[in-house]
Amino acid sequence: MPEIRQDPTTNEWVIIASERAGRAHDFAGVRHRRMPPDFSHDCPFCPGNEVMTPTTLLSFPQASADGWRLRVVTNKFPALDPCQKPTRRREQDLFLSAGGGGFHEVIIETPIHNKNTALMSESEVSDVLQAYLQRYKTISRQPGVRFVSIFKNHGPSAGTSLEHPHSQLIGTPVVPRHVRDQTRIALEFFDKTGTSLYEEILEQELAAGTRVVLETERFLSFHPFASHRPYETWIVPKQQQPCFTSASVQDIQDLARVLRLILRKLHMHLDDPDFNYVVCSCPVGDENHPSYSWHVRVYPRLTETAGFELGSGIHINVASPEKTAPALRETETE
Amino acid sequence: MPEIRQDPTTNEWVIIASERAGRAHDFAGVRHRRMPPDFSHDCPFCPGNEVMTPTTLLSFPQASADGWRLRVVTNKFPALDPCQKPTRRREQDLFLSAGGGGFHEVIIETPIHNKNTALMSESEVSDVLQAYLQRYKTISRQPGVRFVSIFKNHGPSAGTSLEHPHSQLIGTPVVPRHVRDQTRIALEFFDKTGTSLYEEILEQELAAGTRVVLETERFLSFHPFASHRPYETWIVPKQQQPCFTSASVQDIQDLARVLRLILRKLHMHLDDPDFNYVVCSCPVGDENHPSYSWHVRVYPRLTETAGFELGSGIHINVASPEKTAPALRETETE
Repeated sequence: MPEIRQDPTTNEWVIIASERAGRAHDFAGVRHRRMPPDFSHDCPFCPGNEVMTPTTLLSFPQASADGWRLRVVTNKFPALDPCQKPTRRREQDLFLSAGGGGFHEVIIETPIHNKNTALMSESEVSDVLQAYLQRYKTISRQPGVRFVSIFKNHGPSAGTSLEHPHSQLIGTPVVPRHVRDQTRIALEFFDKTGTSLYEEILEQELAAGTRVVLETERFLSFHPFASHRPYETWIVPKQQQPCFTSASVQDIQDLARVLRLILRKLHMHLDDPDFNYVVCSCPVGDENHPSYSWHVRVYPRLTETAGFELGSGIHINVASPEKTAPALRETETE
Repeated sequence: MPEIRQDPTTNEWVIIASERAGRAHDFAGVRHRRMPPDFSHDCPFCPGNEVMTPTTLLSFPQASADGWRLRVVTNKFPALDPCQKPTRRREQDLFLSAGGGGFHEVIIETPIHNKNTALMSESEVSDVLQAYLQRYKTISRQPGVRFVSIFKNHGPSAGTSLEHPHSQLIGTPVVPRHVRDQTRIALEFFDKTGTSLYEEILEQELAAGTRVVLETERFLSFHPFASHRPYETWIVPKQQQPCFTSASVQDIQDLARVLRLILRKLHMHLDDPDFNYVVCSCPVGDENHPSYSWHVRVYPRLTETAGFELGSGIHINVASPEKTAPALRETETE
């Protein structure tokens, strides 16, 4: 029987209609990715082609032009323009707009063109997360930046145009409404109960157990109660801090372990699915509100959003999290 | 230069970054749809296969099993279950859920398997809209129904699995948060200004002129100021009414004309793109609030939403509405 569930972090409703589909093989046959070569002459992210990317902002090892294992560069086709002032202006009576000032960076995760992020080693994933942290710290301190988003797109259904493994960081001069809604809901919960909404979610997910994928010293990974999409996986720290910049060296180390395992499990179980992941963190300025918690959401892209989702904002999820979590929990990663 | 704009109907920000792409040919090459046959033995929506669909709820001509030109049937794999009571219940302390009671219907728009909706005649589109109106009226009166969504998915990127032209209606026992946000924003605007937000938008779009695609006696069609996706097209009635059920016979006739022209223009200009459209209408019970207006939004599916959109809710639109509206305005439809 279908069930309607409310996401406690956004108050959005989701229809869980797992009779419509939902097992791994229902999503098979959408991929058949060809294996790319390990180097591509035309790829701006391959070693030797560094001249094809704008300014290098960070590299591991530091200050090394050759022999790098990770680089962060300015996006050549930025969605927001670092030279433009992030000033707000009102246009006519009704329509509000702001200059498109902001930051758009690319984290080139590896020199190897065909190294799938889901198959990286723990130390490679740790490099990527450390680069996120460093660049997040730098960009969130820039004047006018109100929000920083870090995300990865893997595969064409996830919106990527370049196959070389990379992630992106965008720093915006406005706080997205979607994010304000989430911090407002968390704040109202805190004011009412005196505890963090995310701490409460972790407690209830641990108590239920049915949706847990894996647990480490510092993180819990689970398929949320009101999962919007099949195999949507959250990774939430056990000690809540609003801002990603609060993550310690040990947090990053443990997160690298968890994220690597989750991506590998999804890779094995769903045959290298297209996916996005997002580091969710508070808006700039909310770092000291104890109500919100930074965390990571992984979204395999197995189904398309259709007219109902566009019109209502309600997702129809054809896979119940109580079915997908055990399947992923039991998936071997070696 | 990129620009950030706020959608006045949702308060969501959009990044208009038309330097990244945006002309029709940037979106070419994604399609190459094969022409389906005009009849398919396996298709549950083809004439002669009526036994493959559940209850017939409506047909044109009325009460005719053969020789129909349009049929409405119960969805065989419903997202919501008409037999389940739409009762709300609280689960544990935090997680809220409701029984998945509701309605899910399919409008089979034509007996001809390969008749593209974008190429239908005005009287065929009018039939479709009349069926929407009749079913909307019936379902919105059912006990427990709080919201009715009517939408169409055309093509795989738009989330359809069956190629026979059809639309869908879903009646839900909850009001989507996304819809409540829109009616709340419209109500606050009304309380502040004494006029309907949608009336104000029409006035400003007409005054600007640059984003208008076409105007008829009763409707204005335009690419909105804060367009979320390339070629997103709105059709808004000049006389605002909150609920779609207020549409008169003349409204439906004129809407058929406008919707047909818009779909044909998109078909010609973008080479039969995948698309969704949605009839946006107020929640059940808000029919007498003068602040909101029912309208239609058409979304060609030319780009994928990626991690940034999932994490922030901010869309990056690579085509500015000031460039796409004139292109569509000038597209011939015959």
